[in-house]
Amino acid sequence: MRTLLQSNHAYQRLAQLLEQMIATRSLRPGDRVPSVRQFSRQQRVSVPTALHAYITLETRGLIEARPRSGFFVRARLADTVRPPAAQTRTGARVDIHKLNSLDSLLDDHSGSGLVPLGSALPGDALLPHKKLADIIGKLARSLGPQGVDYDFPPGSESFRSVIARRSLEWGGALNVDDVIVTTGATEALSLALRAVCKPGDAIIVEMPTYFGLIALIRELGLNPIPVRTDSITGIDLNAVERTLKRTRVAAGALIPNFQNPVGFAMGDDAKKDAVQLFAKHRVPIIEDDTFGDLQHSGPRPRCLKTFDKDGSVLLCGSYTKTIAPGYRSAYIAPGKWYDRVVWLKKTSSMASATLPVLATAEFLKNGGYDRYLRSVRLAYRSQTTLMRDAVVRSFPEGIGLSRPVGGFLLWCELPQKIDALHLFDQARAAGISIKPGHLFSPTEGGFRHFIRLNCGQPWTPRIEWAVDKLGKLAKALAVQ
Amino acid sequence: MRTLLQSNHAYQRLAQLLEQMIATRSLRPGDRVPSVRQFSRQQRVSVPTALHAYITLETRGLIEARPRSGFFVRARLADTVRPPAAQTRTGARVDIHKLNSLDSLLDDHSGSGLVPLGSALPGDALLPHKKLADIIGKLARSLGPQGVDYDFPPGSESFRSVIARRSLEWGGALNVDDVIVTTGATEALSLALRAVCKPGDAIIVEMPTYFGLIALIRELGLNPIPVRTDSITGIDLNAVERTLKRTRVAAGALIPNFQNPVGFAMGDDAKKDAVQLFAKHRVPIIEDDTFGDLQHSGPRPRCLKTFDKDGSVLLCGSYTKTIAPGYRSAYIAPGKWYDRVVWLKKTSSMASATLPVLATAEFLKNGGYDRYLRSVRLAYRSQTTLMRDAVVRSFPEGIGLSRPVGGFLLWCELPQKIDALHLFDQARAAGISIKPGHLFSPTEGGFRHFIRLNCGQPWTPRIEWAVDKLGKLAKALAVQ
Repeated sequence: MRTLLQSNHAYQRLAQLLEQMIATRSLRPGDRVPSVRQFSRQQRVSVPTALHAYITLETRGLIEARPRSGFFVRARLADTVRPPAAQTRTGARVDIHKLNSLDSLLDDHSGSGLVPLGSALPGDALLPHKKLADIIGKLARSLGPQGVDYDFPPGSESFRSVIARRSLEWGGALNVDDVIVTTGATEALSLALRAVCKPGDAIIVEMPTYFGLIALIRELGLNPIPVRTDSITGIDLNAVERTLKRTRVAAGALIPNFQNPVGFAMGDDAKKDAVQLFAKHRVPIIEDDTFGDLQHSGPRPRCLKTFDKDGSVLLCGSYTKTIAPGYRSAYIAPGKWYDRVVWLKKTSSMASATLPVLATAEFLKNGGYDRYLRSVRLAYRSQTTLMRDAVVRSFPEGIGLSRPVGGFLLWCELPQKIDALHLFDQARAAGISIKPGHLFSPTEGGFRHFIRLNCGQPWTPRIEWAVDKLGKLAKALAVQ
Repeated sequence: MRTLLQSNHAYQRLAQLLEQMIATRSLRPGDRVPSVRQFSRQQRVSVPTALHAYITLETRGLIEARPRSGFFVRARLADTVRPPAAQTRTGARVDIHKLNSLDSLLDDHSGSGLVPLGSALPGDALLPHKKLADIIGKLARSLGPQGVDYDFPPGSESFRSVIARRSLEWGGALNVDDVIVTTGATEALSLALRAVCKPGDAIIVEMPTYFGLIALIRELGLNPIPVRTDSITGIDLNAVERTLKRTRVAAGALIPNFQNPVGFAMGDDAKKDAVQLFAKHRVPIIEDDTFGDLQHSGPRPRCLKTFDKDGSVLLCGSYTKTIAPGYRSAYIAPGKWYDRVVWLKKTSSMASATLPVLATAEFLKNGGYDRYLRSVRLAYRSQTTLMRDAVVRSFPEGIGLSRPVGGFLLWCELPQKIDALHLFDQARAAGISIKPGHLFSPTEGGFRHFIRLNCGQPWTPRIEWAVDKLGKLAKALAVQ
């Protein structure tokens, strides 16, 4: 299935153009859009084509026709919703075994039959699986024995050289010898933590943060120190500084771009400040840039690594969320810890699978990755916008909603009265998966009335139904 | 390139038959083989075909023509060589950083240009890369989005069901739900150790044992307790019992089948005794069965897991050494620690690459794996035999040589005077890679005059030259 946004009809290109103007607020809610006749002249298309574009956007709820006045950008209910509150630490430790059993309840990937609003799953239909299938088949045949041979660390040079070249996109200047291939960003994070910490060490993390990172930190016997994190600007650097002065910290583990679960991106100045602050205290930063290529508009954001002067940022990047989760193609650029990470990689998995990494490299080089990115960025932006709107329409009053500027995750604060685990149970019974906020709290008891929603799937009546159903369940819980 | 042994000509089948009789010692050195005429009658082939078979074996040095007497099995010089000595512990710890830098010197895989007698690399020409390339290409196209999707733990059911079915081969009865897919046996071992041990725990290991296992044990902060290991019968169970009585041990990590580096297989009785002994002391066994499918003759050996009554054996298996190192298709059947291992797998790499594992499953189901195994078993046996002969011809007197009954690794004790690290350096300068014995010693100072040789590559004049050169270097070192 091709999505609307990947298509090339003239009316669809026009619809995209208008959608982009609305998303970037060149056209704001209540603004009048050009008349159909004007628009057709400006864009040198026929009137029916321009009309077709307008009707497409009207159907998707982005503009509305007012009798005898033309088309207007719809006032978006979601724009009036406050952001979710930040939480400060609650003190008690989270029980890893509770997380564990919870996690086993959360298998909401494609096979499960649940509406997949839980795991961070990019939409199948958006992934370039046909192109990749062609590439991997051809590679396997042309490589012969090399296709079944080990790809010992640091791993495929062709992949590493693409990573180095693409680092220019975020203002970096990685060398092919700075990069080590990993099996997913999870392995990259695991290697990074093991390289710079030993059991008992303290790690600064955002609050909330990715549950996989929390689980990993716990498994390695490390202590997460959660720091107040704003849903728009990111981690509070004053609070970080106070912590660094007060406590012996082994590392910071941060997700500065399109943070999981919130979706914010730190600004360039904040990134630079963060790197300087940690460097001043000689504390390395582990940077998870998994969603970094998926900005909703504008240029690709910089990384913390961009501002790293002495190799003390360990950058973890991945193509699992952008093109193929199952290829596990990811990497780490661990700065000063290069030799140590190569060694750890050898002892913990010896090598990553050869062909998927080579196929990813080939797709990045010659498969039209940038063209592909342009279309999925639009798709994820549109899906996130539609999800925000739908949540605001259906959920009880008083909620807070993050405003993701990239990626496809939405962080939602429910009325305080609602225990997200109850909502989770009831949603699951109704055939819908969500991630309860507890998972994202590095300390016990945080984010009990929060949920994370996956907007990675193309918008369908089924998803619309699911959000509506979630809203009804939440409303019922709110008045109990 | 098809090897001789994979071919189907009548004379080649006959040559194989005779080779098998020689290898299993139905025909012993000095025995007269049937006359060409007799043999042609017995086997119902023409005289020229029978003669062709004999000449093939003569060319390969297995039989010799004596004037007016016919063909005889050649007396094998290698048969007269003693096995390598067992060592007992030396006390001091090995320096992990020394191992580390050593390891970085040891990159002797296909790209390096060295004659690959170091790493345990199966021969490219023996691996079914064409068949696998076909399979993975077809799978990628037919699976569509599923081919790029996550394969979350426990991993592909099709792979797990093949593992379960194949467990009958070693007298096991695994269920599909007993098995978890891993990225290589290395990840399986890492997960197993992390599941049953915590830092500071003691682990019983064979001496010598696989350096990757030693490195992993060290990295996890565990203490290896090496136990005397015989080069023919395997680990000394009396010594194991004394250790279990004397010391608090968290696990045993054993390689009972075609042990790396020695190549022995424990007998069924010893396996049963070992399992009972550990069970009596409530200590789990981590079993590395990486080479288990590669017996040189007779039936597939049993596993320790075969005799496991209460789920306290964690079996680690792999198809990396048999069909495709770079596919990383491996598994763990962790018994009682199933849930724990699934969780550890999720936190350390989330999932293995989807397509290589599915392609391996398809090859195991419908690709002729058993037929393929029959041919590579012959090849590895033949290559190991030729390597033993060549070593005996070239190396100084007084060496000890293991007599591998499966796999493709040979353990060689040099005269005590030789430091294997010197030989390693000189060999490398001459374009040959070997593994020095130090790597296989769980404690500092062991096996300084031992080396491991890889017999995975088809026998060529280049390898013959390399062994001859190694012998000359060793002789020079022995008289210095």
